[in-house]
Amino acid sequence: MGLGTVFLSEVLGTGILLLLGAGVVANVLLAKSKGFDGGWLLINFGWGLGVFAGVYIAYKSGAHLNPAVTIGILTSGADEFAPGVPVGVGSTLVYFAGEMLGAFLGAVLAWLAYKPHFDATPDEGLKLAVFSTGPAIRSYTWNLVCEIIGTFVLVFVVLALGKTPTQLGPLAVAMLVVGIGASLGGPTGYAINPARDLGPRIAHALLPLSYKGTDGEAVGKKDSDWSYSWVPVVGPIIGGAIAGVIASLAF
Amino acid sequence: MGLGTVFLSEVLGTGILLLLGAGVVANVLLAKSKGFDGGWLLINFGWGLGVFAGVYIAYKSGAHLNPAVTIGILTSGADEFAPGVPVGVGSTLVYFAGEMLGAFLGAVLAWLAYKPHFDATPDEGLKLAVFSTGPAIRSYTWNLVCEIIGTFVLVFVVLALGKTPTQLGPLAVAMLVVGIGASLGGPTGYAINPARDLGPRIAHALLPLSYKGTDGEAVGKKDSDWSYSWVPVVGPIIGGAIAGVIASLAF
Amino acid sequence: MGLGTVFLSEVLGTGILLLLGAGVVANVLLAKSKGFDGGWLLINFGWGLGVFAGVYIAYKSGAHLNPAVTIGILTSGADEFAPGVPVGVGSTLVYFAGEMLGAFLGAVLAWLAYKPHFDATPDEGLKLAVFSTGPAIRSYTWNLVCEIIGTFVLVFVVLALGKTPTQLGPLAVAMLVVGIGASLGGPTGYAINPARDLGPRIAHALLPLSYKGTDGEAVGKKDSDWSYSWVPVVGPIIGGAIAGVIASLAF
Amino acid sequence: MGLGTVFLSEVLGTGILLLLGAGVVANVLLAKSKGFDGGWLLINFGWGLGVFAGVYIAYKSGAHLNPAVTIGILTSGADEFAPGVPVGVGSTLVYFAGEMLGAFLGAVLAWLAYKPHFDATPDEGLKLAVFSTGPAIRSYTWNLVCEIIGTFVLVFVVLALGKTPTQLGPLAVAMLVVGIGASLGGPTGYAINPARDLGPRIAHALLPLSYKGTDGEAVGKKDSDWSYSWVPVVGPIIGGAIAGVIASLAF
Repeated sequence: MGLGTVFLSEVLGTGILLLLGAGVVANVLLAKSKGFDGGWLLINFGWGLGVFAGVYIAYKSGAHLNPAVTIGILTSGADEFAPGVPVGVGSTLVYFAGEMLGAFLGAVLAWLAYKPHFDATPDEGLKLAVFSTGPAIRSYTWNLVCEIIGTFVLVFVVLALGKTPTQLGPLAVAMLVVGIGASLGGPTGYAINPARDLGPRIAHALLPLSYKGTDGEAVGKKDSDWSYSWVPVVGPIIGGAIAGVIASLAF
Repeated sequence: MGLGTVFLSEVLGTGILLLLGAGVVANVLLAKSKGFDGGWLLINFGWGLGVFAGVYIAYKSGAHLNPAVTIGILTSGADEFAPGVPVGVGSTLVYFAGEMLGAFLGAVLAWLAYKPHFDATPDEGLKLAVFSTGPAIRSYTWNLVCEIIGTFVLVFVVLALGKTPTQLGPLAVAMLVVGIGASLGGPTGYAINPARDLGPRIAHALLPLSYKGTDGEAVGKKDSDWSYSWVPVVGPIIGGAIAGVIASLAF
Repeated sequence: MGLGTVFLSEVLGTGILLLLGAGVVANVLLAKSKGFDGGWLLINFGWGLGVFAGVYIAYKSGAHLNPAVTIGILTSGADEFAPGVPVGVGSTLVYFAGEMLGAFLGAVLAWLAYKPHFDATPDEGLKLAVFSTGPAIRSYTWNLVCEIIGTFVLVFVVLALGKTPTQLGPLAVAMLVVGIGASLGGPTGYAINPARDLGPRIAHALLPLSYKGTDGEAVGKKDSDWSYSWVPVVGPIIGGAIAGVIASLAF
Repeated sequence: MGLGTVFLSEVLGTGILLLLGAGVVANVLLAKSKGFDGGWLLINFGWGLGVFAGVYIAYKSGAHLNPAVTIGILTSGADEFAPGVPVGVGSTLVYFAGEMLGAFLGAVLAWLAYKPHFDATPDEGLKLAVFSTGPAIRSYTWNLVCEIIGTFVLVFVVLALGKTPTQLGPLAVAMLVVGIGASLGGPTGYAINPARDLGPRIAHALLPLSYKGTDGEAVGKKDSDWSYSWVPVVGPIIGGAIAGVIASLAF
């Protein structure tokens, strides 16, 4: 398979993932939305089923949708990223690029779907939360630990799936993501995917998100919290790399 | 397969879909119901499992249950709507007719199931919401955008399912609809299906839904919000058509 | 297969169904339980997964677990209730007896599991609700209509499952029951099964459920609401019978 | 297969189970967590999907993850604990040891993932609840009954799964655990697994969990409730043993 196909496949799949993932956060957080205050399990299902849909869409490229998965496959010592796609520097970069662009575009689509609700929401922190994760208690060390652990679980189990005769296909990964969110999402909002966090954060920085209050006062857009942005990139990279190494020993 | 079989199959399947779909909204919104105020995820599961049941019932005709799916198959350039059902003007119209009639009848059945609760609910807006969708923030442009995006995801992934060795059958579509509702249902209530919205809206217009208060005062039935009714018809048609075209290029 | 095996299989399967089904209601309704006030979707999953577990347990007898299913198979004109179990008057009565006894015993087990919580709950209506269904708005006609419709959906889709290459096995029925509960459970609490309602109602009448208040005052046990008890028996029988007839025509 | 492989497999699988299981309790109970007060169904899904992930990880050893399952296989009279692992005293002890160590380590990982939230939570009872179960109403007799019944359902259905052509694999066990939690978790918090309770209780006893209030006052760690600790060990052992015996007769 050509790397152009891989690229497009990952763009489409990661785009659908972020459209549904950012969408469910918008639904729960933004003013006047029908799912407002819908609860953590709703958010977990939204992200899990975003993975579900994205995996079907990106079936041609093996549906990584996540640089941490790509890295975990790398460190596991596999020969191929997907049937017909050899592991290599070039293919790795193509996966990364497709995942990042898809995540960026998916977040933009989610913003379009919820445009009137962004306009109706004064709180700039809530708007940022639609795009990118942030810690419940800011502590770079422990936030990093949490992202490492969560991503380790994701990539480790995904690599185990390939060894077992699972008949659930994309649903297995979807339910895994529901579970990681339910169980390990409390401290940092479970980025567990560098592209899922960085791509939308760039979108947040570029999109016009200012709000005009009823008194005409413009509410400035919050900055995109770049000081935290490295945590949900570095943590998942570490967690995915460890998962690949241990999987190569354990399975 | 004869088109009469297709017609009956789609009537039955879409009828079950609307019975369960309108039913869950009634359960959450109408006075004194046991699921009153049950939350957005409950609504998402009700609709998703309505699709689940409907797909089993309409297996003979490929279980479109939705004109946007029929249109997406058309624009994808497929030869058949279902095994043994060639694409054509006549078969397209038979699908549309079966979907519309089924949606109408299913909504009527849901009304019968919840009859005492309709009688006990004074708020006419809530009663209309059992039948048809309405926007959280009325903005025809952005409401249309939201319906286009949501339906695009539905039809695009459904067309991907046909290309992948999925072993979940109807559950895959059901979970997809749960996910779209969780993530993209906030602004417009996710019609993502012209028949699902228009058929029950006609039922709402025809059924006797007036309410007599405890003081004997009759509460007039709200009109069926015809000014919005084109959005959940046109949006899904556009979204389904785009999905078919892109699917024919991508998969 | 001998009818003794059928009988035991249905006792065990329906017992597990009622243990989990009555259990989730106890969890949500009884005082001091950890799932207290856990919401309608929790109840729907408890019952759905009770069916899930019961179907695995009763695989030998085809896992009817419900006289309405037995009746639907009868009216559909099938030759066998399960592989090796011919349809007949004797086998029908064996299914009914196993289902009733299992439902009775399962409810007793649920009562034992929640014994301290029954003792801690003064409200006798809540205790009855653990065992048997009751209407949100009492109207024998419309309550009957609701039970007919809900059971029709259950049996109609179960009969469709047999015609389609479903690979989900018991999960398909489980999710169907989650969906019926979410969508059609609001008015009557979805008995949709005569044994599920009548067996536990008998258990409620026989078990010692009186409560001694902190002031030593004994709170008498509420009667078992026999005036309503025919609705969740007759409604499901009618709904199941109709489903069998229509299924024999449609599938 | 060597017993060393069995041991490592059970350590990894039970570790993932406890990481996600203790994690979801931490998410719902600990201060400032994003899933705070997320509800009982969220907890049920967290534990169920913890089993889901653990079963994939421990596929080599048959994924007992629970001494009650090991015991149920023993009393059912089976020859093997997993393909290539004969039943015997040595293999039984290896399963027990792997399950206990895995549960201990998984709870430690969950503590690390939620470290800032443990530090921010003054209530020591909530911290203990992340590690081990406790009764809603303390009554050793009835708490024991509840654990016996819950574990019986778990092991009985797991043993039935082996007799039926289930195509869900780990998802079947996961959904079963969601159901047991929803339905039978109310009185005791459903340990239904001696290792799941005792391993983390030891971790609780060993870990530094003291809290320093804003006024600098140290809040001592609560004891690990050793007086209750035998209930979630003995109950599941009894329940699992009974399930094995009945399964050997019924299936």
